[in-house]
Amino acid sequence: MQYKAIKLVKRPEIYITPDLFETVTLETPQLDDGQFLLKQTHMSLDPAMKGWMMPDKNSYIPPVELGEVMRSSGVAEVVESRNDNFPVGSRVVGMIGWTEYAVSSGEGLRLLPPEVPAEAVLCVLALPGLTAYQGLMNIGKPRAGETLVVSGAAGSVGSLVGQIGKAEGLRVVGTAGTEDKCRWLVDELGFDAAINYKDADLAKKLEEATPDGVDLYFENTGGAVQHITYGRMNVHGRIIVCGMIADYNTDSPSPGPNWINMIRRRLTVQGFAMPDHWGEVPAMTEKLSGYFMAGKLKYRAHKLQGLESAIEGINLLFTGGNTGKLMVEL
Amino acid sequence: MQYKAIKLVKRPEIYITPDLFETVTLETPQLDDGQFLLKQTHMSLDPAMKGWMMPDKNSYIPPVELGEVMRSSGVAEVVESRNDNFPVGSRVVGMIGWTEYAVSSGEGLRLLPPEVPAEAVLCVLALPGLTAYQGLMNIGKPRAGETLVVSGAAGSVGSLVGQIGKAEGLRVVGTAGTEDKCRWLVDELGFDAAINYKDADLAKKLEEATPDGVDLYFENTGGAVQHITYGRMNVHGRIIVCGMIADYNTDSPSPGPNWINMIRRRLTVQGFAMPDHWGEVPAMTEKLSGYFMAGKLKYRAHKLQGLESAIEGINLLFTGGNTGKLMVEL
Repeated sequence: MQYKAIKLVKRPEIYITPDLFETVTLETPQLDDGQFLLKQTHMSLDPAMKGWMMPDKNSYIPPVELGEVMRSSGVAEVVESRNDNFPVGSRVVGMIGWTEYAVSSGEGLRLLPPEVPAEAVLCVLALPGLTAYQGLMNIGKPRAGETLVVSGAAGSVGSLVGQIGKAEGLRVVGTAGTEDKCRWLVDELGFDAAINYKDADLAKKLEEATPDGVDLYFENTGGAVQHITYGRMNVHGRIIVCGMIADYNTDSPSPGPNWINMIRRRLTVQGFAMPDHWGEVPAMTEKLSGYFMAGKLKYRAHKLQGLESAIEGINLLFTGGNTGKLMVEL
Repeated sequence: MQYKAIKLVKRPEIYITPDLFETVTLETPQLDDGQFLLKQTHMSLDPAMKGWMMPDKNSYIPPVELGEVMRSSGVAEVVESRNDNFPVGSRVVGMIGWTEYAVSSGEGLRLLPPEVPAEAVLCVLALPGLTAYQGLMNIGKPRAGETLVVSGAAGSVGSLVGQIGKAEGLRVVGTAGTEDKCRWLVDELGFDAAINYKDADLAKKLEEATPDGVDLYFENTGGAVQHITYGRMNVHGRIIVCGMIADYNTDSPSPGPNWINMIRRRLTVQGFAMPDHWGEVPAMTEKLSGYFMAGKLKYRAHKLQGLESAIEGINLLFTGGNTGKLMVEL
């Protein structure tokens, strides 16, 4: 059977452009013993993917090699099987890549319970949820009553960070790029306040929304929010650096804040990436499922249609054009 | 008996100027039961003192009130006593202030063994040693074989950080502001390399001195060293922010580095100040005494003469004019 896949054939300079990719038509192979054939139904697009396209000896995972199928996580159904642990009809989540079909022996895949919809898996239980939980809970170690600021709060990670924060008894303030997103954060997700970072009065608004200062800052964006929030950190504040989306698409990253405040307020600023924490995934999945089943984690999926929509669509993540967790429905 | 003391009467704008202080002549009081009279012999001058002159609700200790004797640590001898725990002739270290004599009931003072010279106490066992140990060992958690860069390495804290690093099996690279200081670091203190931060080739020199990248950065200064070293941090590197002396005497602190590297390398940047860690002082003093007795901690004292030399002398800390731990001999 023929299927399409998309290979990375060139590395990005600054922007992700169509010429970085090549769509190829492949033939599904005969299965060996222990193998099974996956038909991907939902493919996740995440900001981290840009990092995976660039070589950096210090990055947390090796880059995608040129000529390889582009890396991504996704949900797939087993449609042929010579592996009893993955019978036909079962569903899995894992790093499947930009492809309609894939052959696997099960490494790195997790079986999914039938009752969780594929969208919820990608929005809550996959990379965004794990990232939100790891950063806020395991690194930030929040205490009920503390004030949390989340930048990029309407994004796939930020919206979960804020909701987990509310579930844990924090005062939660989010920043986002449109009035619509801000309303969604407060009215639907239960944030205590949401601020449009394009507001001319950003500093004053952030000040009003955090009358007791800021104990935790979950950083997804960089930019002005970073500098203003940094200046409002309380003693022993924790800053969790998860993303810097404002600076991914530039060759002259903007300066960070001066470090004097680190001493005066005894701050800790910590960057992290999920591949350091795969060992903790089972425990985190359980926690996330618990919040989800209790109705505490709402999500919004932004679905593109068809494999090749990923090529242009991924840029929505860097322009803020997506409304909800970005994914491709195949 | 009459003695002199110096009060803080005005807060600094940018520089520490003589008009901030007033020298007064006081009379030693009659001692109550439990009290004793201290004659200070050595008074420490430290960069942190500038912070103590400025009001900041988030600072780690309250500022010195206007009209109060300026705060400082020092070594003193008991010359009169109505307290059996502090008999005449015993020596103490503690926050005694800019004064020739002081009355105490013992709070916050530690008795000193007779065999440790007063200079060594202020250079090794008091604030500089405790700060160096807390930052490098308790926060940085170094592992033998790792590479440590220390800025302000010829300073009272930096020189001990580097020597503790060597004692713990690290590769140690220091930066300082003169060729003389650099030679002292390598020839006398055993640093693996020392670099003059005024060198036009600073980036190249730092690169050559850290062929395996940098695992730990102990920050005392800010400035170009900060940006270059930050760019050379290895995965899971730790940055300990102790001082930003390049920025204390300016009203427009220079920008810090962009935070993208925090994610790519999963760095932790942590500011600290000793008053959060008084509980750990006894354990740290024991460790420091151990290094000192084993001959592993050398120091250089820069002694000014007479109480009032502190007024102008404190600025040597901000111009880099001191050669060794700055103190006043009374």
